[in-house]
Amino acid sequence: MAGGKARPESDIFLGIRGQEIELIAPWDSSRAIESKEFIDASDRVVLPSFVNGHTHFAMSLFRGMEDDLPFEKWLFDRILPLESQFVDSEFVQVGTELAAMESIRFGVTTVCDMYFYPESVASVLDRSGMRGLVSQVWSGFTLPEDKDLGRDKRALFESFFARWRSHERITPILGPHTPYTCTEEQLREVADLAAKTGARVHIHVSETEGEVLESLKRHSKTPVQYLFDLNLLNRQTICAHCVHLNEADIALLKASGASVVHNPDSNLKLSSGIAPVSRYLAEAIPVALGTDGAASNNDLSLFGTMDLATKLQKFVGKSNTAMIAEQALVCATIGGAKALGLDDRIGSLEVGKRADLVVVDFAFPHLQPVHSVISQLVYSAQGLEVDTVICDGKVLMKGKKVLTIDFESLMHRVAVFRDKIGAALESLRISS
Amino acid sequence: MAGGKARPESDIFLGIRGQEIELIAPWDSSRAIESKEFIDASDRVVLPSFVNGHTHFAMSLFRGMEDDLPFEKWLFDRILPLESQFVDSEFVQVGTELAAMESIRFGVTTVCDMYFYPESVASVLDRSGMRGLVSQVWSGFTLPEDKDLGRDKRALFESFFARWRSHERITPILGPHTPYTCTEEQLREVADLAAKTGARVHIHVSETEGEVLESLKRHSKTPVQYLFDLNLLNRQTICAHCVHLNEADIALLKASGASVVHNPDSNLKLSSGIAPVSRYLAEAIPVALGTDGAASNNDLSLFGTMDLATKLQKFVGKSNTAMIAEQALVCATIGGAKALGLDDRIGSLEVGKRADLVVVDFAFPHLQPVHSVISQLVYSAQGLEVDTVICDGKVLMKGKKVLTIDFESLMHRVAVFRDKIGAALESLRISS
Repeated sequence: MAGGKARPESDIFLGIRGQEIELIAPWDSSRAIESKEFIDASDRVVLPSFVNGHTHFAMSLFRGMEDDLPFEKWLFDRILPLESQFVDSEFVQVGTELAAMESIRFGVTTVCDMYFYPESVASVLDRSGMRGLVSQVWSGFTLPEDKDLGRDKRALFESFFARWRSHERITPILGPHTPYTCTEEQLREVADLAAKTGARVHIHVSETEGEVLESLKRHSKTPVQYLFDLNLLNRQTICAHCVHLNEADIALLKASGASVVHNPDSNLKLSSGIAPVSRYLAEAIPVALGTDGAASNNDLSLFGTMDLATKLQKFVGKSNTAMIAEQALVCATIGGAKALGLDDRIGSLEVGKRADLVVVDFAFPHLQPVHSVISQLVYSAQGLEVDTVICDGKVLMKGKKVLTIDFESLMHRVAVFRDKIGAALESLRISS
Repeated sequence: MAGGKARPESDIFLGIRGQEIELIAPWDSSRAIESKEFIDASDRVVLPSFVNGHTHFAMSLFRGMEDDLPFEKWLFDRILPLESQFVDSEFVQVGTELAAMESIRFGVTTVCDMYFYPESVASVLDRSGMRGLVSQVWSGFTLPEDKDLGRDKRALFESFFARWRSHERITPILGPHTPYTCTEEQLREVADLAAKTGARVHIHVSETEGEVLESLKRHSKTPVQYLFDLNLLNRQTICAHCVHLNEADIALLKASGASVVHNPDSNLKLSSGIAPVSRYLAEAIPVALGTDGAASNNDLSLFGTMDLATKLQKFVGKSNTAMIAEQALVCATIGGAKALGLDDRIGSLEVGKRADLVVVDFAFPHLQPVHSVISQLVYSAQGLEVDTVICDGKVLMKGKKVLTIDFESLMHRVAVFRDKIGAALESLRISS
């Protein structure tokens, strides 16, 4: 898929030196023999690895936890009390490692995450070999990390930013939670830090109809207008969701250069709605696909998300061409890279770009016959067909086995939290 | 999941003798030692195998074939000409075998299929070890099979019915294509045969808004009313789709005892709409889940379908409890069995029922931690985690390897059709 187009290549030799793609040339077996490490992708498909534009990685520990309770009960009587009870640096490390392992298994190597204890998130992502934008969260509410790290998020961000700013794969960014959970003062602080540091800003925007109505009531502005007026809508801004935007919002978003992360699985599961993504694509607004957290999806694979994104637009647009497979694949790779400001380095197979790529095994009945590789990847593949994953030139998975994280040891640590959460749920059930 | 409830069991010993579940008892290792063949399901989940209520199996050979062309062009300039050019008994055998292998891989053991050359479909399903309702198609149009089998569908059905009626796993049924592609005379013939033989009737009903409007214009009746008045809506009727039903239709459907097959992936992909499945479930109308053909989905897994079905109802119903995971799992197992009239034999793990079951491997990061087995199965599992599949007491897949179909040999036969279709597509592209 050289040149930023979602065009799969065949009969090529792809050479990697260090972090980078050094060579893309016609197939030549002598080159394979001369290679230090040769990965045979015969009858397989090589494509850029996936970019997951919006996640809360550590929430994987809450996956499937009474998620069919009524939404308010699930959020206020389950998720929030349990976050306040259990979320600490150890929780974040274990949950992030679980999510990283799942992501690598599904061919995702770049993620834009928002959760607490960003140092822990960054360290785990770094060790897993993934690439990540890691957000320092701002919110008007008390955060689980406050007990350990305090409330001075500016100071925390400054040291977090200083520590990671030169890292090849980890990028420290600003994460004001939403326009309505942050105070105006906090949003101004974030805008100031963004201007000073050049760090990107990752924020939930107009996910639900309710928050738009609330914003109109409080500020006489939509969330998009409100952010724009606070200097928080520009080329540095990554807007998760954007489900409920009006025409003026879309024009403002387009003019601002901000990008959108579309999370269709989560938007349906939490009954938020369907974002007008075909519209955003038609306006050339940069669009990434995201899974959101595992507790509201409930997986971190972009295969299902690509499939769902196209199908929902076909439904909404009453036309099966309203969004096609290639557009979804672009959003999940080079489009997502662009939305996160990484398209100079990743998102396509090109000489000089970082070697972030996956090999997908097509030897399954549901991927045959192959009339179109792109159609198979978007509409037929399930995710577990990913065989090999390379990020920044390093092999993270080979033969469907993740090499950078030990599954057994991780499962032991996950089980500790499962048991603790399970016991806490018992008492919550009794008390509610 | 004994008793028809979607309640997963643990620490049990499940004994199979011949075709049937002979015993469900607390775990006892001595029983395992005494077994002729013992399958260890430790740390795995055992559940009834899946029922796919509506398919066109052989269309798997058209999977991903220019499916993002505008719908009319795809259907009239691609699918129909290629069906007329290539579909013969050999095509149906190869396509059905490919779909059977894919289905087994995803844990589906029962299917309600509608395509041409039903003898070929039945023979392949029989050899694959699956259970199937196989339809003899009626349509006002010329069918690919007519050149070999002629147009006298009554005579064809009578001999087809006679040959398979006593088969344990294959059930011959009637398949009038739709109320609008069949002539009224054909529909009366089918109603007559249904009354005489007791065979079920598998028909597409109100899939698109257009066909409902057309029916109102031609008959001054909705398709549901039209079928009812022709004695074609009763306990024997399996109605695929039912996307566009009005209140009177729903009342009639409920009173008739007919069942619905919900195909959400196909309904979105072909931009048909979202069926009001929560409504059908609330009215206790039997509902199966279906994938439709691989050319309009594009896979035959019910895992994605369960996930999508719930999420779409949460969206439409503006509530995350509008359809919950357990309801989807019921539709995909015992509910689907009921919709096809097989719930006395399959669909749940109960002593005396046929041993139709799957073992799902949970040793994947995306299936951990397990707060709820049902949530993981519906919202997190991708399909390829199915490890073992048993149908009618016979092991069809073990260790993720299908035992009844040889993959390599099948791929050779699939490749022949892929090449033929590819060449034909080239000339269609030039001529259109």
